[in-house]
Amino acid sequence: MSDRIANAQLRSKVMSADEAAQFINHGDTVGMSGFTGAGYPKALPSAIAAKAREIHGRGEDFKIDVFTGASTAPDADGVLAEADAVNYRMPYQSDPIMRNKINAGEMKYQDIHLSHSGLYVEQGFFGKVNAAVIEAVRITEDGNLIPSSAVGNNLEYLEAADRIIIEVNSWQSLDLEGMHDIWSMPKLPNRIPIPINNVGDRIGTTHIQIDTDKVVAVVETDAPDRNAPFKPADEISKQIAGNFLDFLEGEVAAGRLTYDGYIMQSGVGNVPNAVMAGLLDSKFENIQAYTEVIQDGMLDLIDAGKMTVASATSFALSPEYAEKMNAEAKKYREQIVLRPQQISNHPEVIRRVGLIASNGLIEADIYGNINSTHVGGTRVMNGIGGSGDFTRNGYISSFITPSVAKDGAISAIVPFASHIDHTEHDAMVIVSEYGYADLRGLAPRDRVKKMISIAHPDYRPLLEEYYERAAKNKFLQTPHDLATAFDFHVNLAEKGSMKG
Amino acid sequence: MSDRIANAQLRSKVMSADEAAQFINHGDTVGMSGFTGAGYPKALPSAIAAKAREIHGRGEDFKIDVFTGASTAPDADGVLAEADAVNYRMPYQSDPIMRNKINAGEMKYQDIHLSHSGLYVEQGFFGKVNAAVIEAVRITEDGNLIPSSAVGNNLEYLEAADRIIIEVNSWQSLDLEGMHDIWSMPKLPNRIPIPINNVGDRIGTTHIQIDTDKVVAVVETDAPDRNAPFKPADEISKQIAGNFLDFLEGEVAAGRLTYDGYIMQSGVGNVPNAVMAGLLDSKFENIQAYTEVIQDGMLDLIDAGKMTVASATSFALSPEYAEKMNAEAKKYREQIVLRPQQISNHPEVIRRVGLIASNGLIEADIYGNINSTHVGGTRVMNGIGGSGDFTRNGYISSFITPSVAKDGAISAIVPFASHIDHTEHDAMVIVSEYGYADLRGLAPRDRVKKMISIAHPDYRPLLEEYYERAAKNKFLQTPHDLATAFDFHVNLAEKGSMKG
Repeated sequence: MSDRIANAQLRSKVMSADEAAQFINHGDTVGMSGFTGAGYPKALPSAIAAKAREIHGRGEDFKIDVFTGASTAPDADGVLAEADAVNYRMPYQSDPIMRNKINAGEMKYQDIHLSHSGLYVEQGFFGKVNAAVIEAVRITEDGNLIPSSAVGNNLEYLEAADRIIIEVNSWQSLDLEGMHDIWSMPKLPNRIPIPINNVGDRIGTTHIQIDTDKVVAVVETDAPDRNAPFKPADEISKQIAGNFLDFLEGEVAAGRLTYDGYIMQSGVGNVPNAVMAGLLDSKFENIQAYTEVIQDGMLDLIDAGKMTVASATSFALSPEYAEKMNAEAKKYREQIVLRPQQISNHPEVIRRVGLIASNGLIEADIYGNINSTHVGGTRVMNGIGGSGDFTRNGYISSFITPSVAKDGAISAIVPFASHIDHTEHDAMVIVSEYGYADLRGLAPRDRVKKMISIAHPDYRPLLEEYYERAAKNKFLQTPHDLATAFDFHVNLAEKGSMKG
Repeated sequence: MSDRIANAQLRSKVMSADEAAQFINHGDTVGMSGFTGAGYPKALPSAIAAKAREIHGRGEDFKIDVFTGASTAPDADGVLAEADAVNYRMPYQSDPIMRNKINAGEMKYQDIHLSHSGLYVEQGFFGKVNAAVIEAVRITEDGNLIPSSAVGNNLEYLEAADRIIIEVNSWQSLDLEGMHDIWSMPKLPNRIPIPINNVGDRIGTTHIQIDTDKVVAVVETDAPDRNAPFKPADEISKQIAGNFLDFLEGEVAAGRLTYDGYIMQSGVGNVPNAVMAGLLDSKFENIQAYTEVIQDGMLDLIDAGKMTVASATSFALSPEYAEKMNAEAKKYREQIVLRPQQISNHPEVIRRVGLIASNGLIEADIYGNINSTHVGGTRVMNGIGGSGDFTRNGYISSFITPSVAKDGAISAIVPFASHIDHTEHDAMVIVSEYGYADLRGLAPRDRVKKMISIAHPDYRPLLEEYYERAAKNKFLQTPHDLATAFDFHVNLAEKGSMKG
């Protein structure tokens, strides 16, 4: 047995994942660790899926509700979805198999702001949580957990759950210990200010204290996180990154930002990594990150001495960088803090530190309403994630996107967003490879020209045509021609391209 | 000269409003006091409007940008709009004349979250503020201002402005002194937690300190706030209030609320006042309010010993209650705190205290997206106000609405909201006279039946028909038939009723 399980009581609970799956029953609500493919349980999901298939084979029902921090991986969401073992899922997911089940109407999915998800459990909106399945790096002699590569909603699920199953994953570096900052808000009516004034402030412990009497199983694993490789930045990503950096330079010129101490929040993906690569060669120094995931580009910035500190709730690293983290966690934990997602994404701290938020989108409309989640208004991709937490509360909020997708069949700029996740009141700056649209201080009609200027040239005449028609409306605060507002989307569904 | 102006330097600046208007020039950005018809300048707007008309008469341009706390009154927004003296307006307005100018495309209007408006000025997003025009109860010997019936964005405008004009309004009770709690956040990068743990905590001063050297004029006025009478609650309002109270009772039964210490936030209007009347006869005791405006119903609750403390940024009282406030401010200031709107509406404090938000709406769609601002997607009514601040961050967020408007021509429940101010991620509970739809924990498709159940019976078959069509979509996370999603609104525009 691994010496990573130092507590005698919990050593007595060590068993196989299949044995542990006995504690998960049909109808259960199960809170799991895991955020952006990091720190999710590696063994139980497959064991639960196997149990589900076996029970389904007998013609009986077996489905559970699955809560996590955010997305997990093929060996968690993927296997569970494939086995039709999930009734309801929250607050975020990105697995292709699960996505198909959701869009086929075979699974329920609620897409929740990441700062709200654990809070709602805590506030009793989801009733009882039957089990928590949480990955740890090790269990201390006192029975405390050292979390692994994500903290997520672990605290909320461990506290709410009747039964706890711990996975101790020896793939995760023991040197992660000390990187976490575990703090939770006292319950209502005793909530207090979160005492974080600066991005790197540590306010809690490096372990999670649990009620060891609730632990029904401990499972040993040795399996890597889902660490998706990033594609090398393509030309379009580099242009977008360049335009984003131009925007930052403009803010410096206007006296609203300095080269010293820019605080970033960044969504996950290739474009954000291109932005971080751009920052490597920029005049910005002492960069900080108050964000939800640590990405490759942040490690590069730290290594280059350009970033002083990064706060998040999990990693989202490529396999190469995950290995580097495992090897050098002792070094990185001096500059990286992993917090519960209620804290990494808390409006209070986000508004206080004054960060510049930067997230991707599916489409934006000519007035700056943002669709982050649904292609064609009906087909959910991943979810809103933390983009709402950061967009609403950032010092500046930006969205970065290529102007088209699917070889030009889909425009990122549309007349009316087919699903709205961020409203005209929230998005400030939209960046594409054609430039940036700074919507601050602009009434809706004054936004249109700017938004069309960052659309792909093929779509600009179509957008102008729409706006001409819209401007014939009797009411002109936000001109629309509602009868044709979704023509782009109807074209896409019927003819395969928004161009029609 | 009134002894309300105790500072010698500022006494020397006393002049008429017409004389003071010389300091307002074409192209200026002017930050005014005023929130929900309270505490706005009573004399300068008319003087500026007269100046505008005179200059326009000479064939020359005169327009200013007007910033306030929120809505003002006919003798502020109304006269300025009528004189075509406004180029751009933010963050909120509700004046009929100004609304018409905006919807006719003759004026620019940006509808901004109330907690963001002063912050954006402070962060430099609006460039220079040329003048601040601020109402006060009195000026102290040291040159400090005692604010009147609204604090709003006064601090931000006074600090940002090059020139300050003060209106000292002797209609306002001197006993308001002591009701205000003036505190402002240190500027970035020195922001700190807001030290309010409980609704009634006082953390600042009772006056606003200003740079007296910036004061160019002091104007004496004696004029009432715009205090709109409330209609006596009609049957529908009472039914909605009853359903809202049923919802609260359900929360008590579920252990998520107690009869002791419910904290309310409430939008303005007849339905909210009916809710407050309902609370008078309820089992709820020691009610508190952390909200943006003090309304008649709250004074009744205080008088009845049912409400212990109310925190807001302004009053929105009927004429009768405004007189009562003026007569008894000394008493009420023990239980009422008026704060800057950055604090009354701050996500940090809102999330901390754990309030139940309750706001009106124009329409909600079958998935719980909320339109608070635009009739038919194009015609702005008032604005989002603080509803976003409270909805996103409340312990529970609710919306209350009659099921139909305009004698049934407009349904409050529609297939697709024609403008979205609060997303499916934000609204929890929608209440009409037909019941309440509790959307918490529900995936989009599971919300539809609940939303249709609170629609007017005349519209239920139309909504069901739409959903049947929508459910034929290939993708079923959020089923829609985009080609007909706005048929209700197209019908309304073309035929005068959403029924077609």
